[in-house]
Amino acid sequence: MTYCLALNLDQGLILLADSRTNAGVDDISVFGKLFTWSLPGAADSGGPEARTLGLMTAGSLSITQEIVALTEEEIDTAADGVETIATAPSMFRVAEAFGAKMRDVQNRRGPQLAAAGVSSAASMIVAGKIGAGPGEIFLIYQAGNFIEATRDTPFLQIGETKYGKVILDRVLTAETPLSDGVKAALLSMDGTVRSNLSVGAPFDLAVSATGAHGWLRRRIEADDPVYKQLSDQWSDQLRAGFMALPELPLTD
Amino acid sequence: MTYCLALNLDQGLILLADSRTNAGVDDISVFGKLFTWSLPGAADSGGPEARTLGLMTAGSLSITQEIVALTEEEIDTAADGVETIATAPSMFRVAEAFGAKMRDVQNRRGPQLAAAGVSSAASMIVAGKIGAGPGEIFLIYQAGNFIEATRDTPFLQIGETKYGKVILDRVLTAETPLSDGVKAALLSMDGTVRSNLSVGAPFDLAVSATGAHGWLRRRIEADDPVYKQLSDQWSDQLRAGFMALPELPLTD
Repeated sequence: MTYCLALNLDQGLILLADSRTNAGVDDISVFGKLFTWSLPGAADSGGPEARTLGLMTAGSLSITQEIVALTEEEIDTAADGVETIATAPSMFRVAEAFGAKMRDVQNRRGPQLAAAGVSSAASMIVAGKIGAGPGEIFLIYQAGNFIEATRDTPFLQIGETKYGKVILDRVLTAETPLSDGVKAALLSMDGTVRSNLSVGAPFDLAVSATGAHGWLRRRIEADDPVYKQLSDQWSDQLRAGFMALPELPLTD
Repeated sequence: MTYCLALNLDQGLILLADSRTNAGVDDISVFGKLFTWSLPGAADSGGPEARTLGLMTAGSLSITQEIVALTEEEIDTAADGVETIATAPSMFRVAEAFGAKMRDVQNRRGPQLAAAGVSSAASMIVAGKIGAGPGEIFLIYQAGNFIEATRDTPFLQIGETKYGKVILDRVLTAETPLSDGVKAALLSMDGTVRSNLSVGAPFDLAVSATGAHGWLRRRIEADDPVYKQLSDQWSDQLRAGFMALPELPLTD
């Protein structure tokens, strides 16, 4: 299983992914599911604008790795005039490029996987910004179609999404400061990890503040002292807050 | 959808069920999913021991209503010497009786439902105690097989279980006092209702303290003032606790 989430806040973009993959509970490995690109652009000489792009993947690892490999190859080898995520003029077109890759790979690999009784299900989150444009986040489904998150619900999740959603619903809005957004993302991950063994550390975090290009990336191990303090303190505060709640009278 | 949960605490049993059923989002009704029996017994005259029994249901309403109807009919009409949940000597045998009903009804109705493209999926939680015996809770699956909760994880859930599990994992143990157990159950329900529209109020609550027979039952409407205060205060405390958490440095 997997849990990845993307937050699109006024102050910036936050991506957080776990790194556990499993082919059964007896076959668990660490695989990065967060990919970032930071491309300087060449707008001064009529080339593409600078861009900060991110991708997180869930589902069939062979499917999503092929999508990433094809994307990287395309950036390196595309002929002049052929659009790639490095030259697309908008985040919508970047999302469309990943959606098209998803369709291609599903069409080529899906039938054989299905014949072998193996699922080719996969989904991705695409995040980024181009030039001075705003940050945008997209959820790309298995059929290559996609949706974009709006200000009303400024986050997207893939994989094991339910355990970690309650905390996001309660504390997160588009106005949440970037540092609080990182905390909310980590608590969402922490709740998921406690409930689903097949989601696990290390976690990959990438943050890009509004108005600047490039990602701050950090890998967070399970024994990271700040993460551990965050998790323990949150548990303590939940319990203290819980004890302070009013009692419900048991009869009408 | 449905969300029901049962807590088996040292101080007693707690059952909580939502009451929303839907046949599509355009066809939503209120149906009770919590059924309780309080049977005085006749141990003095060699009859069955007193018992306090509860049932919560999820899944196909036609399947689970038939199970309840058959169970009620059997209690009323069983010939002397024929075991029913009113005379079974142990909670294990009570769970087995509900499991057998599930198998019967699935065998009779399942194929026709499947032919019509309708799911017959259903699950149930059985809770109770017999005589001076301990409280026990069981989760009965569609095939009629079942598991019993143990002290390590003293709760069971059916229906939309994931949103409400994180809070239970964080605050609940078998030693949790009964009044705190009720709060934890309501917060678990509150988190689920916020995330899944097809789970909704009113909620049915039943509590039976250890050492006594019979249920305290209460129906909780969405605008119940104590429930609303619990929900609002919890949200406020979560936000306050959240703000007090340490910040994660973004670079290693």
